[in-house]
Amino acid sequence: TYLHLAANPGLTQALMRAGVHGVAYETIQAEDGSLPCLVPMSEIAGRLAVQEAAKYLERPMGGRGVLLAGIPGVQRGRVVILGAGVVGFNAAKMAIGLGAQVTVLDIAHRRLKELDDLYGPAVQTLYASGDNIAACARQADALIGAVLLPGATAPKLVTRALVKQMQPGAVIVDVAVDQGGCCETTKPTTHDDPVYSVDGVLHYCVANMPGAVARTATLALTQQTLPFGLELASKGFLQAARENAVLRRGVNVDAGCITCPAVAQSLGLPCAPLAA
Amino acid sequence: TYLHLAANPGLTQALMRAGVHGVAYETIQAEDGSLPCLVPMSEIAGRLAVQEAAKYLERPMGGRGVLLAGIPGVQRGRVVILGAGVVGFNAAKMAIGLGAQVTVLDIAHRRLKELDDLYGPAVQTLYASGDNIAACARQADALIGAVLLPGATAPKLVTRALVKQMQPGAVIVDVAVDQGGCCETTKPTTHDDPVYSVDGVLHYCVANMPGAVARTATLALTQQTLPFGLELASKGFLQAARENAVLRRGVNVDAGCITCPAVAQSLGLPCAPLAA
Amino acid sequence: TYLHLAANPGLTQALMRAGVHGVAYETIQAEDGSLPCLVPMSEIAGRLAVQEAAKYLERPMGGRGVLLAGIPGVQRGRVVILGAGVVGFNAAKMAIGLGAQVTVLDIAHRRLKELDDLYGPAVQTLYASGDNIAACARQADALIGAVLLPGATAPKLVTRALVKQMQPGAVIVDVAVDQGGCCETTKPTTHDDPVYSVDGVLHYCVANMPGAVARTATLALTQQTLPFGLELASKGFLQAARENAVLRRGVNVDAGCITCPAVAQSLGLPCAPLAA
Amino acid sequence: TYLHLAANPGLTQALMRAGVHGVAYETIQAEDGSLPCLVPMSEIAGRLAVQEAAKYLERPMGGRGVLLAGIPGVQRGRVVILGAGVVGFNAAKMAIGLGAQVTVLDIAHRRLKELDDLYGPAVQTLYASGDNIAACARQADALIGAVLLPGATAPKLVTRALVKQMQPGAVIVDVAVDQGGCCETTKPTTHDDPVYSVDGVLHYCVANMPGAVARTATLALTQQTLPFGLELASKGFLQAARENAVLRRGVNVDAGCITCPAVAQSLGLPCAPLAA
Amino acid sequence: TYLHLAANPGLTQALMRAGVHGVAYETIQAEDGSLPCLVPMSEIAGRLAVQEAAKYLERPMGGRGVLLAGIPGVQRGRVVILGAGVVGFNAAKMAIGLGAQVTVLDIAHRRLKELDDLYGPAVQTLYASGDNIAACARQADALIGAVLLPGATAPKLVTRALVKQMQPGAVIVDVAVDQGGCCETTKPTTHDDPVYSVDGVLHYCVANMPGAVARTATLALTQQTLPFGLELASKGFLQAARENAVLRRGVNVDAGCITCPAVAQSLGLPCAPLAA
Amino acid sequence: TYLHLAANPGLTQALMRAGVHGVAYETIQAEDGSLPCLVPMSEIAGRLAVQEAAKYLERPMGGRGVLLAGIPGVQRGRVVILGAGVVGFNAAKMAIGLGAQVTVLDIAHRRLKELDDLYGPAVQTLYASGDNIAACARQADALIGAVLLPGATAPKLVTRALVKQMQPGAVIVDVAVDQGGCCETTKPTTHDDPVYSVDGVLHYCVANMPGAVARTATLALTQQTLPFGLELASKGFLQAARENAVLRRGVNVDAGCITCPAVAQSLGLPCAPLAA
Repeated sequence: TYLHLAANPGLTQALMRAGVHGVAYETIQAEDGSLPCLVPMSEIAGRLAVQEAAKYLERPMGGRGVLLAGIPGVQRGRVVILGAGVVGFNAAKMAIGLGAQVTVLDIAHRRLKELDDLYGPAVQTLYASGDNIAACARQADALIGAVLLPGATAPKLVTRALVKQMQPGAVIVDVAVDQGGCCETTKPTTHDDPVYSVDGVLHYCVANMPGAVARTATLALTQQTLPFGLELASKGFLQAARENAVLRRGVNVDAGCITCPAVAQSLGLPCAPLAA
Repeated sequence: TYLHLAANPGLTQALMRAGVHGVAYETIQAEDGSLPCLVPMSEIAGRLAVQEAAKYLERPMGGRGVLLAGIPGVQRGRVVILGAGVVGFNAAKMAIGLGAQVTVLDIAHRRLKELDDLYGPAVQTLYASGDNIAACARQADALIGAVLLPGATAPKLVTRALVKQMQPGAVIVDVAVDQGGCCETTKPTTHDDPVYSVDGVLHYCVANMPGAVARTATLALTQQTLPFGLELASKGFLQAARENAVLRRGVNVDAGCITCPAVAQSLGLPCAPLAA
Repeated sequence: TYLHLAANPGLTQALMRAGVHGVAYETIQAEDGSLPCLVPMSEIAGRLAVQEAAKYLERPMGGRGVLLAGIPGVQRGRVVILGAGVVGFNAAKMAIGLGAQVTVLDIAHRRLKELDDLYGPAVQTLYASGDNIAACARQADALIGAVLLPGATAPKLVTRALVKQMQPGAVIVDVAVDQGGCCETTKPTTHDDPVYSVDGVLHYCVANMPGAVARTATLALTQQTLPFGLELASKGFLQAARENAVLRRGVNVDAGCITCPAVAQSLGLPCAPLAA
Repeated sequence: TYLHLAANPGLTQALMRAGVHGVAYETIQAEDGSLPCLVPMSEIAGRLAVQEAAKYLERPMGGRGVLLAGIPGVQRGRVVILGAGVVGFNAAKMAIGLGAQVTVLDIAHRRLKELDDLYGPAVQTLYASGDNIAACARQADALIGAVLLPGATAPKLVTRALVKQMQPGAVIVDVAVDQGGCCETTKPTTHDDPVYSVDGVLHYCVANMPGAVARTATLALTQQTLPFGLELASKGFLQAARENAVLRRGVNVDAGCITCPAVAQSLGLPCAPLAA
Repeated sequence: TYLHLAANPGLTQALMRAGVHGVAYETIQAEDGSLPCLVPMSEIAGRLAVQEAAKYLERPMGGRGVLLAGIPGVQRGRVVILGAGVVGFNAAKMAIGLGAQVTVLDIAHRRLKELDDLYGPAVQTLYASGDNIAACARQADALIGAVLLPGATAPKLVTRALVKQMQPGAVIVDVAVDQGGCCETTKPTTHDDPVYSVDGVLHYCVANMPGAVARTATLALTQQTLPFGLELASKGFLQAARENAVLRRGVNVDAGCITCPAVAQSLGLPCAPLAA
Repeated sequence: TYLHLAANPGLTQALMRAGVHGVAYETIQAEDGSLPCLVPMSEIAGRLAVQEAAKYLERPMGGRGVLLAGIPGVQRGRVVILGAGVVGFNAAKMAIGLGAQVTVLDIAHRRLKELDDLYGPAVQTLYASGDNIAACARQADALIGAVLLPGATAPKLVTRALVKQMQPGAVIVDVAVDQGGCCETTKPTTHDDPVYSVDGVLHYCVANMPGAVARTATLALTQQTLPFGLELASKGFLQAARENAVLRRGVNVDAGCITCPAVAQSLGLPCAPLAA
């Protein structure tokens, strides 16, 4: 299952005390650095993020009453996406598809180049400097927080002061909420009560976004996790983790110890990596 | 304002009794047959329709829990659009943009060709035979009713029996609700209480959809109606209607008479067109 | 040849005194209202306009030192195009192709829709209100004047005051210069000395832009005019003009009279249309 | 030359007895795992596969009489592609280009993502589970077998029973035939007699597909093999193989021994890799 | 049914003698000049034309051995299309989709502009001068004859001498064969024996191309002709033809007289149009 | 700063004598072989190269008078790009965007494939054999030299004899001039006097192309170099170079020794790499 321990010191302590084997889907990592169990959920969350932004921009839902696509002769809605990783890339794809005016900010030139190659002038890519983030946020109809680092807390790129300068009725969808969020004003919400307002800006911070499209999410996850599940079942935990380095990287706590360096560093606790 | 008298015999009678000049935005018609005041609202409604479908397909909103885009390796959501006029065309644009598997049905080859030219294999166009409509509806995650005829009632293309055969949790967005709807199960709803369920299929039938994006809609409408408003104000009703054929076609009732042939025909009442 | 009499009272008087048959390429008009001799030159001028804008935005040419495409992570150049007719459409095509952030303004919804359909969120279309024009001009790196009306003077959409508010080093390319220009600051220039500066804004206002790409322009024009030339040669002027309505509409002056209504109206002179 | 020994035990034995140096184009492998001599031939075969499918779907060629593109208002042909490697990717490109409704199945999420990014809703990517393969095959007008593993036999993804459930007049193009094919019903054919029918389903299983477009194939191959040929000629076999790891990986048999692990494993024979 | 009388004096005489009512699908013409029964068949023929060209370019089928798409690093096949009407437009769409280097020639600027807008630099449009046709034909791998005029014989744009200068193994697909063909070397062939060679150039001139994809063609035609058939059945010939102008234009011969002006002109016979 | 020592033996000697720490932006190299400081400048130069080619193809600037886009019915300009690295890729993107007929030559199949995937038949990719280069150059309106190897001199792919065979008024933009150029006729020019003619072919060989768009270039460079600058400032040269391998690879001369292998090899001088 997904653990997100870096943002949950309490859960981490509990797992350590219980002495369980804690395999976190989000830190299972392939040889090439990719995250096979996190990627599909990130794709879903990124695609869903724009859908939520569009929804809450509607006047009856509390938003500014802006249609992202605009129509011929009328200004398109402005969508600002912080982060061009899997979440941000998929959010950009949807926002462009819905006809919004899209800006994506990141510090990784290579990721921005990929967006530039694929979407050309339908997207504006910008270096994620503080100035650029602030200028974009002030003009945004929707802001998507998509800065996720595997197993670490998200940086607070959007301050409380900046939220105050955003347009009334604008919408923030903070996909990074599972790792603490990338806005200072972010706090986790649920599908039952998904949004709250800070300084007139709607915040959608549902911790388990893919749950909203359970049919799609289940199909997506089963494909990725089935092989690991079969291996765990047939070999037992220790042998499976020893023989399969991809799985082993997913073990966050084991026998009372944190075994994932990123989690340990975020929480300031010692780390005892599992041996092969 | 928008009157939609063909679907409102009561309102028509009231207007006739009151003896008012009733200019219906939806029947103002340019020389080339286009409808300058209806088009922007139809564009907004068509674009919004897919957004509503996506929203109500979410599990917490009552739907099937399907993400229209799917993700790599997982089936895309299926969107079926009845009608390839302005509403249907714009709905198709958004559904394709969101990554759905889109089918558009119409009887006008020229309209289907335009979609085929613009979107290629990202859209399936089909002749709107009863068989094709039924087969598509049964597989649909979302069905968009987009069959609007200026000043006339919409044909009932989706029967109650067909709704029963649709998938549980599927969503119908009937944009034609202003003209009676193109599903037998359609009845008008409001932004406060937008959906209801029939045989497990969610129906979104808000009569004034563009109101949800009031900021965009106001900008759009002002651009089109301002010139007519100025002309009415400066010349008075009769002279403006006499001199401007585009405006004249928009007059539906005048001095107790129906002046729009389509409205008259739909309601089975006599028609007395306004003279130039 | 091209006459542009509406903007040249002196030339008009001279032609009237001389009693010549004056066929203006720019007013030859087909049954469907299209302008077969003007269209190719307008296409060339529109495509060239963006190339000139890019050129004069270079620092060594006197401009702001902005690359229209930007690069990943750096803001694209902003191109604002006034008019979505043939010139504006072709300018937009090139500006989008070069990767600029493009805004096109017009009052014709149908033309804006065509751009929206073809280029989606790679273009922002806006209604050409005074407010929109001013807001766009102030942010523009390049502004293309593309408001041409067959046989009439161009409206002055960009005031001297607005030019003053533009960014230093921005570039105006006024393609409408042949008909007087659509900026108050426009005055005709030549290929030998193509630009001048007003309030720090470079103006490119070459009256015969297609001459810069003579090889392409000659090929383009020959294809359209050859049929008319052959008809004039074989039938003589009067008979050709009588029998061919398309050609007849191109006659601007004949036997000392203005024969083109638009020219006559612009100059406040009487008009004597040629009979069939 | 191409050897495909894994599917040819007889040829392997002969080569071992003859004691020749057997360099198989298909196993020459660069540092990054790419196959420089196989890739161009796979690209050609993948592109050609759809062309053959379209051809044999014609009624006079024995097929269902379906045009892959359909036309506006008529269902597109359905093309199902098993495998999203080089062959499958290129087949998808052509099938989408011809306007078919295309589904690509693979187990590698990364490959499916590339197709999703490049072609959006013009392609449906699916996880290659047995259920998905069967459901797709039953609806297919054309099925392309594109599952090739370097130097190994292809898995039999399409059973004889599944072929029986396909539509009459459907076409299978099994590009994997060189490695045994990915259908149980596959057997190699030639350009002289390229197709046969099993249960009403046409099978095109030509072992050397690129030979059909010899001019293109020759140009393609020469570019890739010329450098190796020059190196072999100037250095002799042993030294060239020792110094050039890319070439060395291409050696399948040498001095009576199998030197390629994949071939040895497929045939259950011992392997003696060539030393650097 | 389709008559193509302009190219069939014998059939015309026979129909006149028999005194039948001859409704030609190809001349049924809507108010806007479009040809509702011809268009779908022209779309199919145009799309199929490129498929046939690709097929006969294969070495085993007698052609040059060229893959239209080429592959990265290898020259694309060159496809030249004469005519940018419905047939040519659809042929261009397929040829571009298959990755060929495509040139389309026509004299109608508006048609070439549509291709230029939709496909940009993936297509080269050229004015159909004799010089351009000759230069293109000499370099072509495939040449598609797509010059069809409703009810008239096709112009012979490709002379016997020009065919001689084409590349050996090149392929001509003359879709205009139903109206006599646009190459001097064209003569009708059948699906049983579709090609012949003249000076080393393969000619595919099947008179009823859509028959090859009977399933698609039947669906396409039924949608268009069903309404007319129902009207003929319920009203009888004379009344139906009188009341429905679209149908009336389709009547080519009636009671021993030619009733279609274009047919009469092509055959040099008198014409007696049917009265409303 | 950028040093390009391989092409500047004099500067190299001077730097060695002075004993400075010479960090060359162009050889700072990340773990994956990418060049973070060179890439943005190469992107700008590649994009700018096509803009310069378009400019100097204008008749008043001395060129052939060709519009790269052509217009419907008129031949597009032909752009030939030598090299499909960062410079060539970005030049191709702009040339395609401007509507030219583009050919890109390289020996790396993978790079050509990327262009083929992204742009399809809008680009022709060719293997960079001598024959292909010569044939393309002879037909080119514009030729872009984009063959850059980090820290080495560019190969002379275009001989003086080949330049003589190019079309009069054609334009060469040699972006490789910083490393000696890839044409025999190349010699460095400046923004003040950017072009010269050899055998009627215009040569644009400005050594610091991005300087023309200083605003864009400064933004681009700052983002990449700021982190290195901060590290150098806080740690001092030696420690920074020791701890940061990316930076260390950028050191070309240090304490009188050449420390970059490629530079040393090009100049035939000994190399003393900096230790970690």
